[in-house]
Amino acid sequence: MIQFSPGPSQLYFTVNDHVKEAFRNDIPSLSHRSKTFESFYQNIKDGLRELLSLPANYSIFFTGSANEVWERSIQNLVEDKSHHFVNGAFAKRHFEIALQLGRQATKTEVPMGKSFGATEISYGAELIALTHNETSTGVSLDTGFIHSFKSKHPDSLVIVDAVSSLPYPDFDYTQLDSVYFSVQKGFGLPAGLGVWMVNDRCLAKAENLLAKGKCIGSYHTLPILHQFGLKNQTPETPNVLGIYLLSKVVGDLVRKGISKIRKETEYKSAILYQVLDNHPTIKPFITAKEDRSKTVIIANCSDRTMALTAYLLEKGFYPGEGYGEFKKQHLRFANFPTHSKEQFESLTDAISAFR
Amino acid sequence: MIQFSPGPSQLYFTVNDHVKEAFRNDIPSLSHRSKTFESFYQNIKDGLRELLSLPANYSIFFTGSANEVWERSIQNLVEDKSHHFVNGAFAKRHFEIALQLGRQATKTEVPMGKSFGATEISYGAELIALTHNETSTGVSLDTGFIHSFKSKHPDSLVIVDAVSSLPYPDFDYTQLDSVYFSVQKGFGLPAGLGVWMVNDRCLAKAENLLAKGKCIGSYHTLPILHQFGLKNQTPETPNVLGIYLLSKVVGDLVRKGISKIRKETEYKSAILYQVLDNHPTIKPFITAKEDRSKTVIIANCSDRTMALTAYLLEKGFYPGEGYGEFKKQHLRFANFPTHSKEQFESLTDAISAFR
Repeated sequence: MIQFSPGPSQLYFTVNDHVKEAFRNDIPSLSHRSKTFESFYQNIKDGLRELLSLPANYSIFFTGSANEVWERSIQNLVEDKSHHFVNGAFAKRHFEIALQLGRQATKTEVPMGKSFGATEISYGAELIALTHNETSTGVSLDTGFIHSFKSKHPDSLVIVDAVSSLPYPDFDYTQLDSVYFSVQKGFGLPAGLGVWMVNDRCLAKAENLLAKGKCIGSYHTLPILHQFGLKNQTPETPNVLGIYLLSKVVGDLVRKGISKIRKETEYKSAILYQVLDNHPTIKPFITAKEDRSKTVIIANCSDRTMALTAYLLEKGFYPGEGYGEFKKQHLRFANFPTHSKEQFESLTDAISAFR
Repeated sequence: MIQFSPGPSQLYFTVNDHVKEAFRNDIPSLSHRSKTFESFYQNIKDGLRELLSLPANYSIFFTGSANEVWERSIQNLVEDKSHHFVNGAFAKRHFEIALQLGRQATKTEVPMGKSFGATEISYGAELIALTHNETSTGVSLDTGFIHSFKSKHPDSLVIVDAVSSLPYPDFDYTQLDSVYFSVQKGFGLPAGLGVWMVNDRCLAKAENLLAKGKCIGSYHTLPILHQFGLKNQTPETPNVLGIYLLSKVVGDLVRKGISKIRKETEYKSAILYQVLDNHPTIKPFITAKEDRSKTVIIANCSDRTMALTAYLLEKGFYPGEGYGEFKKQHLRFANFPTHSKEQFESLTDAISAFR
């Protein structure tokens, strides 16, 4: 059975072996204050810098989940105002969390499945929040759009949710201030770890709020994460096994090479969209080609959802259910680095033959 | 090598097999919104209720760590005032987090390695925080002491840190309101999961703060955890593998039986303390016998620390380092359910012969 659900998704194909090695070497009993643990953290820093061309002024921290990054980013980067570009369930949650935390959050909202025309933001927004890839609807924002805010709003911080797209997107991190992801999507790891990348402007903002006497949290504030991160440590006992596995998979992805990963992602998404475009009954949910996600491809199956699901399961393909209100009409297909070209060719052949 | 560090510690001896089964059955790719995931959560609820004699008015939630419980407990259970019994580094962190979150936290503090004489708390404390077992110093509070607050302070909530003692202590949960632990200690699991047990009074307090317009957090407030917990789900994508493994180990511990676990823990701690009491140079750090932890036993090795460490490592025993300022004088020995009587007999024989 190949798991095409967008998360938790199919494990990266090397993870089974890495887990065996971890248990052989007692990694799950390893102290998070040991030199060995610190080497895993360092390997992740080095590996992500190389894989993503991350500038030197970015730091890398671990959280329990991307949900936690939503909360910590508001606490640490917003005194009063944040502005959110909302086109799906996950972007909306970040916006709602800002409200829950008492901020004056504003939003630019478009219907589910659509992208944004306007780039206006509310006056004085300290943080501009964008979702590169909406896992709920399969809309991906153009990187040019994402990069366009920085020069127009030099006093704002730009944060990007890349939970279900990294390592694919080719961001120019100098045009952003923070990017985050969860390991159970494109990195193909067991769930239970968020990765939060922030530049020095984010650290300075959090320090500034703290100096003003604002509450920015406790054990997981940016200054505390930074203080421990400099030593390759975490404030709390973290998901040591998850961090070990991430260090291994990042190494595997670096060895494979980001340009090969990007090319394969584009090839696999192209053949799936082509089959959906030409199918008599199963159609791409996102009609505007420029808005289509390369990493989470959503098929509008209308009343054929159950039939297609049963058909695919019988062939060994496990599709992801539609999200929320679309549960009965959509199927979602993750296109992550672990999914091989051959697997996608078999999947597209199967969908193509479905009547 | 047998790991006696108090955490991350030796895995429960069944974990290796459970991990193999998890990977065979694609648990790491399992959706956290699936019925199968819900069954793991339900198994943990049922198992912990049986193992710990947890009353029906308690709910069980998952966090990223015990650190997170420190923060969430202050956010959800304290509007203004909390009182903390501080006799070590971990109790102190909970107190400090209350201050960081802007609460009027007060404390009863005794020197490291000592227990409490007085039971006075500051007037109007909404939360009384106790650390059953100080992992940093090896002091354990008598359960009678812990149970004594409820009747004297019926308007306060009593929260107990049992991070490094559960499942051993025989708490009367009707005399407490909340207890929490981390899975990498007595439950012998890979780190990266906290378990937070709260009764209905805690839920009501959080609801009350929310109704008053107070900010109690976002995705991990008690009302949100409860709303998802009723469906055996979590708000975020959690550490699915960790939750699966916990459900399996809790089942194993239930089958072993809590009274056998308690008796073995007492036997193992008795033989180690006896050897330390009689040793010419290595002594128990905690001199008052009634204060000695059964689950984290600390040896004061003074200038023999390095020699004893090298001696034990050669024999296949991995002792835990002393905590913080005691790094050069102490060694810590976890006495968890995974550590067998035979392993403790070998360990004590070895220490006994050390000169």
